[in-house]
Amino acid sequence: MPRAVREQMMMDAAVRTFGQLGYRAASMDEIADSAGVSKPLVYLYLNSKEELFTACIRREAKALVEAVQAGAEPGLLADRQLWAGLRAFFTHTAENPDGWAVLHRQARTHGEPFAAEVAAMRDEIVAFVTGLIVAAAREAHSDPALLDRDVAGLAQALVGAAEALAGWANDTPGVSAKEAAATLMNFSWAGLENLMNGRPWQPQV
Amino acid sequence: MPRAVREQMMMDAAVRTFGQLGYRAASMDEIADSAGVSKPLVYLYLNSKEELFTACIRREAKALVEAVQAGAEPGLLADRQLWAGLRAFFTHTAENPDGWAVLHRQARTHGEPFAAEVAAMRDEIVAFVTGLIVAAAREAHSDPALLDRDVAGLAQALVGAAEALAGWANDTPGVSAKEAAATLMNFSWAGLENLMNGRPWQPQV
Repeated sequence: MPRAVREQMMMDAAVRTFGQLGYRAASMDEIADSAGVSKPLVYLYLNSKEELFTACIRREAKALVEAVQAGAEPGLLADRQLWAGLRAFFTHTAENPDGWAVLHRQARTHGEPFAAEVAAMRDEIVAFVTGLIVAAAREAHSDPALLDRDVAGLAQALVGAAEALAGWANDTPGVSAKEAAATLMNFSWAGLENLMNGRPWQPQV
Repeated sequence: MPRAVREQMMMDAAVRTFGQLGYRAASMDEIADSAGVSKPLVYLYLNSKEELFTACIRREAKALVEAVQAGAEPGLLADRQLWAGLRAFFTHTAENPDGWAVLHRQARTHGEPFAAEVAAMRDEIVAFVTGLIVAAAREAHSDPALLDRDVAGLAQALVGAAEALAGWANDTPGVSAKEAAATLMNFSWAGLENLMNGRPWQPQV
């Protein structure tokens, strides 16, 4: 078996084990067992539990970012593009619950340098969403009324809402990726749409 | 000085130190210094770093939940009530950035039992928001079309968006609590309003 294939199998086992047991409780013994290889071989390929965990975070972060980017088809109208991106996001997190647990729960709860890896991925996703919102604003107005800071806040809100919903969808039996994406479209787009068209909610104070 | 007063001063110092330096880097020496008391006195009152941190999480969680509940005035229309609740939330997190860092960053990133304390607070806030959304749906329809699961998803999205925005507002110079709350009203309410009135976004597939 080529090294690259065997390494992927070990990483699959590691993501499964870290995602289900948590970073601390997961042992290299269990990861080796789950991958069907010897523990020395895991150490030989991946050095230490820390490095293995970092490699898992990077692989899962890359896969998630690529899934979201691949989901949004350029050329679609903004709402269709957001819908496509959200479907891709929730489909990916539903199909890879252990990977999502590694990114959203484990990597953020065991200090540095793991948290920094996830923060970098989150920044990439926020930048991508920011681009979508700017494009949507351009589509709606020739002279967009949204300030950069408004857009940055909206992107943060959308990403925060998506993260919370992905955790909830994975923990709630019977909530499909499509349903989670539809909930977020209802929550965000119907709101964003009004906002894009200059109909924000007004505090009247 | 009465014990209760002195204990509050130590907790103030502890929240400041944990929030700014992080749980691991914060030392009992620094906390004692910052409170202007001796280290043995901190141990005498609050036993251990773990117990002190747990006490900080509980105090800050209680204060945040109470601030949000106090902010929403019963009897207001749903959108005014959400606006009041969000203003209270973002005002509290802006005025207590160290407390918010303890809850949102530190408590979730240092394993159990701290994460469980914060999860309990989050559940309380989600339940409160769920009640607001149900009330809003009742206000809009006599026969509410929203299923329990839809409401649960919307509450998760709103809380996730609020958490993300609070972190962003505290890290971004010049973003006021009112601005963060207005961003989230624009994002969520204009969306929720359409949804409440039976005008959801449709995927047209």
